Parts: sequence; C-alpha cells; structure tokens
Amino acid sequence: MALDSASQDLLFLRAHTANAFADGPVSDETVREIHDLVESVPTASGGQPLRVVLVRSTAARERLLRHMSRGNREKTALAPLVAVLAVERPSAVPDGALQAAYFIIAVRAAGLAAGPMSGFDAEGVGREFFADTEHSALMVVNIGWPTPDGHRPRGPRLDFDQVFSTV
Amino acid sequence: MALDSASQDLLFLRAHTANAFADGPVSDETVREIHDLVESVPTASGGQPLRVVLVRSTAARERLLRHMSRGNREKTALAPLVAVLAVERPSAVPDGALQAAYFIIAVRAAGLAAGPMSGFDAEGVGREFFADTEHSALMVVNIGWPTPDGHRPRGPRLDFDQVFSTV
Repeated sequence: MALDSASQDLLFLRAHTANAFADGPVSDETVREIHDLVESVPTASGGQPLRVVLVRSTAARERLLRHMSRGNREKTALAPLVAVLAVERPSAVPDGALQAAYFIIAVRAAGLAAGPMSGFDAEGVGREFFADTEHSALMVVNIGWPTPDGHRPRGPRLDFDQVFSTV
Repeated sequence: MALDSASQDLLFLRAHTANAFADGPVSDETVREIHDLVESVPTASGGQPLRVVLVRSTAARERLLRHMSRGNREKTALAPLVAVLAVERPSAVPDGALQAAYFIIAVRAAGLAAGPMSGFDAEGVGREFFADTEHSALMVVNIGWPTPDGHRPRGPRLDFDQVFSTV
C-alpha cells in the first residue's frame, strides 16, 4: 500500500455512515477544499457532470425534508450541513455517481463525517431544487464534524471470494 | 484538511486516467489489499453490490477486447491487469457506482495507476462474462504500475461556482 496507515483509516477503514454530528458549522471554505479534491479526479468518460446544492437556509431545509423518507428526516433536519448531489443530465449518472463517491471521500479527507442517503423522493427533490433543468438528483449527504456515537456498528462485509472472480 | 498533502496528491490531485503502464504484474495479494479498503466503506443504502472479474488469461482478454470500443482496444490489450466491474442486479447501479469509485481510489491507494473506461458494449460484456446472472457491467478498468508518460495532460476543470450553489 502506498497510502499510509493513518490515511487508510481516515478514508476507508474507519469510514462510517454518520447519523449524528458534533456541533459546529461547516464553512464554505471547507466546502471549497472538498471541491478542489473532487474536481481533480478524472471520470470514466472525462466529463464532470456532478452538481451540488448546499442547503443552508431554514426554508430550503424544510422544502428538502418533505421529500426525505421517514427514517432519514430527523437526522437530515439536525445535520450541520446538507448537500443535494445531482447530475446535470440523466445520461451522466455513471460519471456523476463516481464523482459523488469522490465527494464523500473528500468530505472525509477534510476531517468531516458524511451520511450519504438514497432514501428520498428523487422526483420531488428534482422539482424542488432543479425545476428548470435536466438535472437528476442522485443522493442527499448529511455533513458535519464527527462525534464518537454518530454511527451504528458496522454491518458484515463480503469476503474477497464473494466479490472477485478470475477468468 | 485532515488528509496529509502526500495522500491528497496520491489519491486526488495527481490522479490521472492511465492509458499506459510500467511493466510488472499486479499480484492477487495486491488486489486483496484493494478489496479490504473497498469493502470497509459504507454505501448509501448499506448494500455491497459490486462484483469484479479479473481478466487474467489470454483467452478471456481476447473475449473482452471484442466488446471494447475501438479507441480503448489497444490499451486494454496491453494493460498488466484488466478488471470488469459489475453490479449484481441492475437496481443496484447507484451503490455499485459508488463502490466502483472506491475501487478506483483504492487502486491508487495501493500505488497503482487506473484507467477506468465506459467505452465498451455493456450488453456484450454481460453476455461474455455474466451469462447466467442478473449482473450488469458498469465499467472496465485497466490497472498497472504507473509510468510517467502513461497519461494525457489534464483537461480543464470546473470552478467552484459552476458546480456548487447554495439555497
């Protein structure tokens, strides 16, 4: 491994889906640092279709909460920052999903915790935040500074032979 | 940034799509280390739908090349290792694409270079390598040890305000 052990822990081995966060805001400056990492990574087709809406106002947060599934509503209401990740056109979903993953890893690289969620009404979120465009909502991510009790115990993981085969 | 500067360079800032590689094989042991990183990262819905076929034999490489787009054929023929990334069922594409991105970053974490490609006939690859299953091919990734002249100059990147908006 070229990546040192502390960075392996930070980005991969101790990565959790955060459901709660420490108090404290996430500044635009920190978000710009995340952007600088995400935009530097190539995608499979060379495009950069990811678009991100930062939901900062109380009114916008309430518009978003209506479209979250019941189990995601409270934690999304309480997260210090919520980002709606979308692609600029539906055909760009594969590259957009790649960039969404880079975004989540870059959030962790900044020392923040991420709670990515797919449990929401994507059409409703699209109407609410991207009404005049071809944008398609991919994922909603809660973001904040980590707290020790902010995640559930890790579920079981697949063994190498369950994921990889050789031909 | 919590991630140190050398690791930012390795995973993000000096990341390129590799079109050529240094000589030297990629061992199964290295691939297992990549797996250990990928499987430790949570997905949006908690599933782990990514499945990877390592194309190691000459016969399997030739079967794959038939389905690659013309521009991707030669570099895929020459790469030390080729991995076909798929999801175990079509509905799992979003989480599978997240895991595919984790895979690519983990390849870089191992010190290797990655050439992810979406230019191939996904149905043909599916028939060839996943004939009896619901698997859907997502991406083909060339993998090998980096060489200084293995990539093109980086294309233009989007500015913060082209990607992010605040509501």
